[in-house]
Amino acid sequence: MTDSLPVTDRSRLRRSHERGDFDRAAINAILDAQPMCSVGYVIDGKPYVTPTLQWREGNHVYWHGSSASRALRNQKGVEVCVTVAILDGFVLARSGMHHSVNSRSVMLFGKAFKVEDPQEKLEKLGRFVNGLFPGRYEMLRPDHDQDLKATTVLGLEIAEGAAKVRSGPPKDEEPDYALPIWAGELPVRMVIGEPVPDPRNLDGVSEPDHLRAFRFG
Amino acid sequence: MTDSLPVTDRSRLRRSHERGDFDRAAINAILDAQPMCSVGYVIDGKPYVTPTLQWREGNHVYWHGSSASRALRNQKGVEVCVTVAILDGFVLARSGMHHSVNSRSVMLFGKAFKVEDPQEKLEKLGRFVNGLFPGRYEMLRPDHDQDLKATTVLGLEIAEGAAKVRSGPPKDEEPDYALPIWAGELPVRMVIGEPVPDPRNLDGVSEPDHLRAFRFG
Repeated sequence: MTDSLPVTDRSRLRRSHERGDFDRAAINAILDAQPMCSVGYVIDGKPYVTPTLQWREGNHVYWHGSSASRALRNQKGVEVCVTVAILDGFVLARSGMHHSVNSRSVMLFGKAFKVEDPQEKLEKLGRFVNGLFPGRYEMLRPDHDQDLKATTVLGLEIAEGAAKVRSGPPKDEEPDYALPIWAGELPVRMVIGEPVPDPRNLDGVSEPDHLRAFRFG
Repeated sequence: MTDSLPVTDRSRLRRSHERGDFDRAAINAILDAQPMCSVGYVIDGKPYVTPTLQWREGNHVYWHGSSASRALRNQKGVEVCVTVAILDGFVLARSGMHHSVNSRSVMLFGKAFKVEDPQEKLEKLGRFVNGLFPGRYEMLRPDHDQDLKATTVLGLEIAEGAAKVRSGPPKDEEPDYALPIWAGELPVRMVIGEPVPDPRNLDGVSEPDHLRAFRFG
């Protein structure tokens, strides 16, 4: 079950980049398909990986968190690695070795920056909410100054990294195709369920359209 | 939308640990529910995050990859961070600030070790396949020595880390509950689809039971 998900390092990425694998359309499509991401960073020489949500605006990805978070403070201005990985299915082969997964993933590298300007931060947070649920931000109680101070938004330019995609059936060794073993794909996908209204919703508040329109890419 | 997913650092973990948040039952349940993970590591002071699959055996998590992978070579014997994050739903509040996600996540820290003994490695890979698809490993073409040499298995003792779980409705500020805004949860889950047989399956090969029995936890 090797090569299950992309195993990548910077030297390979640089070479990939030269080979044209730094495919911005592919990278954008994966970032836009799945908000869940992992942000890797280093404190005192040790690695940390924080799961969070990312959103893309043009040439940048953004993520956010509490301004009190030591994690976010330790990501600002330093090298980070932002990874999005989407599991599309298990690939069942005729040997353990050739089991794999179908997946789409992106790894991005670079120095994270903090969005300092309050107005810009507000706009970014609005786009984050509306990117998931179009039109929702305008329906909400507007952000207080205090909310904005309590929130840190970090960004990364999409400049170094790679996308990797695997799809399709297993690739077995030629003699193994003669074996009477079921092989194939078991597709996986993320779906949304029925919305659960907050018990404290006011009577007569109607369900917004953006709720049932949500889809993972 | 702060505190969307756990933002954790080692100092908090140590304190959490002391508070008893190092809950092995919760950690095990999350690791066992979702094989997808992110492995964070450091090369030349820079962070890398590689998505891969993990499996647990008792007090350890394991992952694997190609022996030729620079990533895996750079994880052996050094500090890594293994994170599993499961998105259970979006939490839609009455202000942008209190939007969140329901999720279960685990962060584990420690030095990764390589499983050197070939027999032990073989057993681990067998358990990995059977952990996902019970009984499958015994149906497969047995691993060649060459397969085993080409595969590196790394492990990490479950000793330092934390689990974090959020569930339930949004937590809005008290005055905001008077606003006529729909709030609630939009559940998310990972599901399997219809198996896709390899076009090269032999005639009459039957679909194994382990295929449709698979579930994410």
